[in-house]
Amino acid sequence: MGSYSTTSSSAQNCPKLVFRQLFEKESSTYTYLLADPSHPQKPALLIDPVDKTADRDLALVKELDLKLIYAINTHVHADHVTGSGLIKTKFPGVKSIISKASNAKADLFVEPGDKIYFGDIFLEVRATPGHTLGCVTYVTGDGPNQPQPRMAFTGDALLIRGCGRTDFQGGSSDKLYDSVHSQIFTLPKDTLLYPAHDYKGFTVSTVGEEMLYNPRLSKDKETFKNIMQNLNLSYPKMMDVAVPANMVCGLQETKSEAC
Amino acid sequence: MGSYSTTSSSAQNCPKLVFRQLFEKESSTYTYLLADPSHPQKPALLIDPVDKTADRDLALVKELDLKLIYAINTHVHADHVTGSGLIKTKFPGVKSIISKASNAKADLFVEPGDKIYFGDIFLEVRATPGHTLGCVTYVTGDGPNQPQPRMAFTGDALLIRGCGRTDFQGGSSDKLYDSVHSQIFTLPKDTLLYPAHDYKGFTVSTVGEEMLYNPRLSKDKETFKNIMQNLNLSYPKMMDVAVPANMVCGLQETKSEAC
Repeated sequence: MGSYSTTSSSAQNCPKLVFRQLFEKESSTYTYLLADPSHPQKPALLIDPVDKTADRDLALVKELDLKLIYAINTHVHADHVTGSGLIKTKFPGVKSIISKASNAKADLFVEPGDKIYFGDIFLEVRATPGHTLGCVTYVTGDGPNQPQPRMAFTGDALLIRGCGRTDFQGGSSDKLYDSVHSQIFTLPKDTLLYPAHDYKGFTVSTVGEEMLYNPRLSKDKETFKNIMQNLNLSYPKMMDVAVPANMVCGLQETKSEAC
Repeated sequence: MGSYSTTSSSAQNCPKLVFRQLFEKESSTYTYLLADPSHPQKPALLIDPVDKTADRDLALVKELDLKLIYAINTHVHADHVTGSGLIKTKFPGVKSIISKASNAKADLFVEPGDKIYFGDIFLEVRATPGHTLGCVTYVTGDGPNQPQPRMAFTGDALLIRGCGRTDFQGGSSDKLYDSVHSQIFTLPKDTLLYPAHDYKGFTVSTVGEEMLYNPRLSKDKETFKNIMQNLNLSYPKMMDVAVPANMVCGLQETKSEAC
């Protein structure tokens, strides 16, 4: 076979970042591993680790010769148990992080505007309540030494062509609409969106795509609120186990000592 | 929270490439969408599309405003039905591609060393028999205008911390070992490896990682052959449907007319 068409492709600055997207099938949860391989210590963090796949994630961290420093949650999940507490029992140096607004236990609490550094790379914290009161979105930094395009870890605030439900845990469709439109849709259109879940096999989207094609959040606020009010979703089967556990890093027995 | 450590991260050239990894849960298959967005026509291709998720993939192609030109298979799959034929019935301009060595039907047949261009970006064809006789690995080009690091779509030849079985369809553990060591492990160590399947929630690996940590292929050839001989795998449940269908682009009824 020969060549069929040629044209120049443009180049852009792309700083090094170790990045892995990891999937937990049962709850369709994505865990994200990020690290700065240029730093002598290769500091790494996990976003939304799951208890059932914590060993897989820790084995990968070890194989990649990274130093795990943070286990971070976007919010108090209702559909799976976080791996944060379990990870801390195995790697006591790891600090758990969650938003102050979540009211959950953790080593460090973040607020809007905070920066979480791992090596020279950082995540910026944006408040995106609506699925829960304490939901945040973590966005890679804006700057010459930060990954381009930017990457946003949206938790359940914004899913690919969808969004998290708003009918419990302090949920509010009014707040979620404002959160996504003011904190996520204002990012550059090529920003890569990495949600906490996907049920259709998508792995990533962009701000531009969701602004155009999200069947809920591309609508006006009243239509969105109507859609969310009429979803008629069943009670999450894991909720009564997951929420109390996730308030204390996923380890109910040992409670806050492990957080 | 403040900043905990800082260091400079290095930058590298990173040409534009639209890239999407898509998952089909039932057979744990990854389909890959690649496109050159810098070319006026935004030409795109799908690697290993699945019949059940063809509509999802085509909707995405449309939303991203891409022009699908190729539906490519790494080999004749035994565990799912390819979406190539179905895609061609919906987009008659799309050409199906498979290796000449597969003996399957397609519009275009590739051989080792061939280049498949979409815009200015190309895939290089490498013969990696062993799982089947006709298995190939598609590798993004080596050059200043090609994606960096390189990306290899390994089909079932090399899976993350594993490999495809070698006990049917002209399989040979001897050949598979040579294929992986001569055609994949000789690529730069930072080459990103994208397999046709993953069963543990991994999405990507690298050549360097698999050379060190693949529990089968990091061993010497005799040990590898012994491992493969003693897997005692059951007969694939989809095989008697999938293989005959995939010999003719996934559309048995219409046979070669649709290929």
